[in-house]
Amino acid sequence: MINQQRLWQSLMDMGEIGGTEKGGVCRLALTDLDKQGRDLFVQWCKDAGCTIRVDKMGNIFARRAGLDDSLPPVVMGSHLDTQPTGGKFDGIYGVLAGLEVIRTLNDQGMDTQAPIEASVWTNEEGSRFPPAMVASGVFAGVFELDYGLSRADLDGKTMGEELARIGYNGPDDVGGRPFKAFFEAHIEQGPILEDEKKQIGVVTDAQGQRWYEITLTGQESHAGPTPMSRRRDALVGAARLIDQVNKIGLAHQPNACATVGLLQVFPNSRNVIPGQVFFTVDFRHPDAEALAKMDQALRETADSVSTELGLEMAFEQIWYSPPVPFDADCVALVRQAATDFGYSHRDIVSGAGHDACYISRVAPTAMVFVPCENGISHNEAENATPEDLAAGCNVLFQAVVARANS
Amino acid sequence: MINQQRLWQSLMDMGEIGGTEKGGVCRLALTDLDKQGRDLFVQWCKDAGCTIRVDKMGNIFARRAGLDDSLPPVVMGSHLDTQPTGGKFDGIYGVLAGLEVIRTLNDQGMDTQAPIEASVWTNEEGSRFPPAMVASGVFAGVFELDYGLSRADLDGKTMGEELARIGYNGPDDVGGRPFKAFFEAHIEQGPILEDEKKQIGVVTDAQGQRWYEITLTGQESHAGPTPMSRRRDALVGAARLIDQVNKIGLAHQPNACATVGLLQVFPNSRNVIPGQVFFTVDFRHPDAEALAKMDQALRETADSVSTELGLEMAFEQIWYSPPVPFDADCVALVRQAATDFGYSHRDIVSGAGHDACYISRVAPTAMVFVPCENGISHNEAENATPEDLAAGCNVLFQAVVARANS
Ligand SMILES: NC(=O)NCCC(=O)O
Ligand SMILES: NC(=O)NCCC(=O)O
Repeated sequence: MINQQRLWQSLMDMGEIGGTEKGGVCRLALTDLDKQGRDLFVQWCKDAGCTIRVDKMGNIFARRAGLDDSLPPVVMGSHLDTQPTGGKFDGIYGVLAGLEVIRTLNDQGMDTQAPIEASVWTNEEGSRFPPAMVASGVFAGVFELDYGLSRADLDGKTMGEELARIGYNGPDDVGGRPFKAFFEAHIEQGPILEDEKKQIGVVTDAQGQRWYEITLTGQESHAGPTPMSRRRDALVGAARLIDQVNKIGLAHQPNACATVGLLQVFPNSRNVIPGQVFFTVDFRHPDAEALAKMDQALRETADSVSTELGLEMAFEQIWYSPPVPFDADCVALVRQAATDFGYSHRDIVSGAGHDACYISRVAPTAMVFVPCENGISHNEAENATPEDLAAGCNVLFQAVVARANS
Repeated sequence: MINQQRLWQSLMDMGEIGGTEKGGVCRLALTDLDKQGRDLFVQWCKDAGCTIRVDKMGNIFARRAGLDDSLPPVVMGSHLDTQPTGGKFDGIYGVLAGLEVIRTLNDQGMDTQAPIEASVWTNEEGSRFPPAMVASGVFAGVFELDYGLSRADLDGKTMGEELARIGYNGPDDVGGRPFKAFFEAHIEQGPILEDEKKQIGVVTDAQGQRWYEITLTGQESHAGPTPMSRRRDALVGAARLIDQVNKIGLAHQPNACATVGLLQVFPNSRNVIPGQVFFTVDFRHPDAEALAKMDQALRETADSVSTELGLEMAFEQIWYSPPVPFDADCVALVRQAATDFGYSHRDIVSGAGHDACYISRVAPTAMVFVPCENGISHNEAENATPEDLAAGCNVLFQAVVARANS
């Protein structure tokens, strides 16, 4: 059994870096706070006897040697970056659960056949640098290294520049080495486990996502003397599209999600008709075909709204992450562990994207979910119980050790 | 006849302060650039022999003595602040046309019975510090001085602080002295004069305005695992209201205008359901009753949309500027001057608010409009011809001198 109190305390300590008044965390990727969080993790891993490697995307691997250290490692991990209004658990739990597995192995003086690594993946959230999971994507060969390093935030700063600035532009090549398996523990970030009073989610799949960037351009003009008939109001166009995005999500129930999360108005002055609006669309569905239908519907409505209002449109799908089936053997190890510990559990599809989604392309992969309070995540109120987090970590421990010794 | 070339050159010189690549001007109220513009105007006025006074709201009055200097002055003027994407003419023309009238009187060695003043009113645009026309409003007794000085920008800086910072917190009381008349020259900012090929607009009235601030609060949550049925998406609510605002404007044609110009999303991250949205509404109509009906419609739709989506709403009308009829005698002087010069002209209702609207409460007031290219204003492409600007300034000259000698 892992040490519940130690795991909880590590989460609380990490949560102080970027901790907000409301009890959440704001630690955006590759900021000074992200560096502080990384430094703390690296120190903890060194204290636990691990060797540290950092790759060119800033991904960190803390290794506990195996009895046969030439075997590919079993890797655990997730991310330390958060949303602007993030919590203490999203991502951080998967990283520190990995560390807790290593600490527990140390406590018990237990060796594993294959080496074991706890990992941190850079910029999983995609909030500062879209898209999400970009560094695990480079690791898995989904994106080129140059693409990853050139992702820019809204101020034009790139991941490459910011990695160098905080000193996490490591020497290692990104990817190209085998994992015996990859396991990621995570809070569910949705309401299903809590609603059904299950302690463990055995994640069989992750839904697909499409992300878009849309810019509508009309003409800024005076809000007073410009007759309604002469306007080309980019915000009216965006408003209609936001409502349509919502309707597309509702039309593909029960499984679709559709969100406009980010929007910027130009020039953003009360008495000026908006001349330009930039906004994003996030579509999700577990079924690739349904997701393609949503895509089609969005393109049609975007064309007709922009034409009707005389707006120019730049429309780009900037990211497609297809639905992911996880590895049956690894999933079975997770299910077996939950059963062995006597934890209530159910199979579940991940609503969020995770580094595990990309790593699954190059390694047998599975995930362990635990409930979070009210299903709320990407919110400072995000919460989970020490008991559930410990249960998930025990499942992770058993699955990882079984795999490493197999 | 005024000096067309000198007037144009002064406009171009002033337009360099805050000049943008696209040929517009960004010189927001009480910024360093606004100070530079004010300093230049003050220097020009001193060179023209004027005495300068500044009041506690930063309004500037440059005075040319009258033969009987104890008489109330005839005052001309407008504003030097611009929109973020503003032009060289909106406001600035009214200020520099006033200066040009004084320069022309000097050239001709002409005296007037009453003194004549060229004025600059602080923060007319209301873009940085809402509402618009706040300093002329204090002058006219519509707002308390404390209200004026405490208006804050989105960063929380107040007009009082910023006036002190740039050294334009003058010693004079605001208002409380009589004007023999007030005349404001301005570009039309709409398409009517250009469409009808008229060189001068004789402004008889200004339409009323209502400005609102609305904050919708839902709950930020993860865009992936949060089912559509559990969302309280503040941006979906804002989108529906923006569309309704537009529909309310269309329902009150031909005269209504309805605009959402400013909107801010929180936390503004691609994969987070927006938890809060702040936006503004700008309603205009020449008829107070129609404007009240638009207000009623907005309140009803805002209530029903927020209730339907489970959003909390803070709804505030932050400004009401009723429709303004200008002074019949002053308007007649403008019409007479246009006729005497042989300029094509028509009566017109102002679509924008102007400092003249508030000054009309404490002094006989009128306005002179000239056409602007494509009716475009609050846009860097704002433009007007030297000839039309000179025609408007000649009309201003004749009306002012006639009034000052009457
Ligand atoms: N787990 C998580 O919040 N990932 C961020 C990427 C996404 O939006 O799915
Ligand atoms: N003239 C002008 O642009 N005034 C700004 C106030 C308004 O929005 O009407």
